[in-house]
Amino acid sequence: MQQAGLTVHVDAGGNLVGRLEGATPGAAPIMTGSHTDTVFDGGRYDGIIGVLAGIEIAHTLTEHGVQLQHPFEVVDFLSEEPSDFGVSCVGSRAMVGLLSPEMLAQKSPAGQTLSEAIESVGGRPKELGRAIRGPGSVHSFIELHIEQGPVLEREQIPIGAVTDLVGIRRYRVVITGQADHSGTTPMDYRKDALLGASILIQATNAKARALNTDTAYVVSTVGYLTVLPNSSNAVPASVEMMLEVRSNRNSVLESYGDELFAQIHAEIAAEGLTLDASSVSYGEPALFHPAVVELIGDAATERGYVSLRMPSGAGHDAAYLSKIAPSGMVFIPCLNGRSHCPEESIEPEQLKKGLQVTLDSVLKLDTIAGFAE
Amino acid sequence: MQQAGLTVHVDAGGNLVGRLEGATPGAAPIMTGSHTDTVFDGGRYDGIIGVLAGIEIAHTLTEHGVQLQHPFEVVDFLSEEPSDFGVSCVGSRAMVGLLSPEMLAQKSPAGQTLSEAIESVGGRPKELGRAIRGPGSVHSFIELHIEQGPVLEREQIPIGAVTDLVGIRRYRVVITGQADHSGTTPMDYRKDALLGASILIQATNAKARALNTDTAYVVSTVGYLTVLPNSSNAVPASVEMMLEVRSNRNSVLESYGDELFAQIHAEIAAEGLTLDASSVSYGEPALFHPAVVELIGDAATERGYVSLRMPSGAGHDAAYLSKIAPSGMVFIPCLNGRSHCPEESIEPEQLKKGLQVTLDSVLKLDTIAGFAE
Repeated sequence: MQQAGLTVHVDAGGNLVGRLEGATPGAAPIMTGSHTDTVFDGGRYDGIIGVLAGIEIAHTLTEHGVQLQHPFEVVDFLSEEPSDFGVSCVGSRAMVGLLSPEMLAQKSPAGQTLSEAIESVGGRPKELGRAIRGPGSVHSFIELHIEQGPVLEREQIPIGAVTDLVGIRRYRVVITGQADHSGTTPMDYRKDALLGASILIQATNAKARALNTDTAYVVSTVGYLTVLPNSSNAVPASVEMMLEVRSNRNSVLESYGDELFAQIHAEIAAEGLTLDASSVSYGEPALFHPAVVELIGDAATERGYVSLRMPSGAGHDAAYLSKIAPSGMVFIPCLNGRSHCPEESIEPEQLKKGLQVTLDSVLKLDTIAGFAE
Repeated sequence: MQQAGLTVHVDAGGNLVGRLEGATPGAAPIMTGSHTDTVFDGGRYDGIIGVLAGIEIAHTLTEHGVQLQHPFEVVDFLSEEPSDFGVSCVGSRAMVGLLSPEMLAQKSPAGQTLSEAIESVGGRPKELGRAIRGPGSVHSFIELHIEQGPVLEREQIPIGAVTDLVGIRRYRVVITGQADHSGTTPMDYRKDALLGASILIQATNAKARALNTDTAYVVSTVGYLTVLPNSSNAVPASVEMMLEVRSNRNSVLESYGDELFAQIHAEIAAEGLTLDASSVSYGEPALFHPAVVELIGDAATERGYVSLRMPSGAGHDAAYLSKIAPSGMVFIPCLNGRSHCPEESIEPEQLKKGLQVTLDSVLKLDTIAGFAE
């Protein structure tokens, strides 16, 4: 950061921030960045390219003697991935005032609190009772990131202009039947909990598929399932599942579970089964600013790159920044859509296009004095 | 046994055998019996009532000064339940010459061989190279047992005349898809192994239901299922299942798996999945002698008890005895069809009816000089 001409400090949330001053006195900064932490056994691009892109843009501006009207800030956000403290996006939450006292008090398995950990990397947790950057204090935020999914690669499109981030709702679903001898219990006498689970799995797949439109993104997954007693000669007595729904439409997240459970109720009951579902987590979608999304698409078009308006199915620091500033994200393809694994990979040419669009977007953002709500 | 007038010995297979001599010199014995071992945490009736019934019949004959034409033997078969040696029906297999040298060499977790264990209870394992009782050496065999299923209780029928014992075929089935991020992977890009498993579970339930007729008994169960990676935010990469099919029709067991896998092949492939199945065990059905089954039904009718011709969905010592002698079984209801648990329960009146039918059947068998093949 220093070699690129940035003035560096660690903020109260433990975020590493580099800054170039702008030409207009008192102007709010244009911000970019991402994170440099990874999941265990993760890849080399998730997050990291977004920080390096910011530094490279600063380097390029400095090298060419270009001073923006607005200050330009590059942020390496603290601990975006799920951490030992049970909290993700630690730095971006802290920046916008959404790191609660409860979160700060959570402990790692080693017994350290998140507050102590933030202090140990140079942060000032005592100041986190309020936002480090309040609404209006940041001109705009843009983050370059790998897609972590298969769409851009499969469609051979180099640039994704991210429209929104999905919200996530998870249900714990238990289907209860009766354990019976697999030999002596005729088919019509059974209450097979796994048969009930299969009804739910097929129904949620069909429902999620049907709800997708050009603008509504909906995915539903039963990723976790356990059977009791799980013995080859016993009719399953109960099945526990985690049902996850992600969508960029909050209306979908609000109604999905109730609709699905009502839809399969008769079929479940006809098998002599009961279904108990409880909502265990619910995070709302985050919407990016339409003007920023459009500007990213324009930047791609002007360079001759095809771009795709697309939602993000994963969470990002930009979701928190979008709560205080007009924000957007630039996605680039990654090999086989894979991430969070050592095989995570991108081509230099793919990164170059993404970086070019990010730089051009920063230059375009600098021409905008303010955004309409 | 001695108090009931029986002469007692332990045979080469470790079976406890009690005998009343018959009036006709050289006649083959009518045999009854079951087992007194139980599964861990099992009930008080599974097997045990079949041995006690034999002793009570001997007692009754002795008390009334009745001598049968044929000798009458009561057997407490050794170790019918799954044992520490990985073999069940140890005594009845040994009696008919089906306890192989490989089985005799199998070891318990404590390191004892089955051969050593049989010797420790008074058996003579060295003599087990051939049947203790060869074909024709036993006049007939009849076993009283609790149903261990729900049919008689549900239908309020006191006596089951068992027609045959199901064979069991088990397949290990692995459905392979691809682990993907549950948020960033659109529905149409997925290869969800658990969706494939749900297709199989529904198909096998429908198929087994459709194959049942008045005389063909078919049950199919996916009792064991595990998901990888089994995480709420990952599309399932693979699912391993045990698919069990039981039927009294060998033709069903022969073709069931191939037909099922062919039937769902297109649907599995359309989801981008592969299915690998291997047959891991295959035991053929055992057929009871029609004359013995009819005689049991007649005995019930003559006492004014409704009886039901029914298959047995579980294995029994009688399955092995049926290989050397005309055999049959008398079933009585048990509470909620439950067995292999402490809640296993029967009413005295239910046992009395079963015992009466067994005694009457023995008296009827004694009038038959020989059976047509």
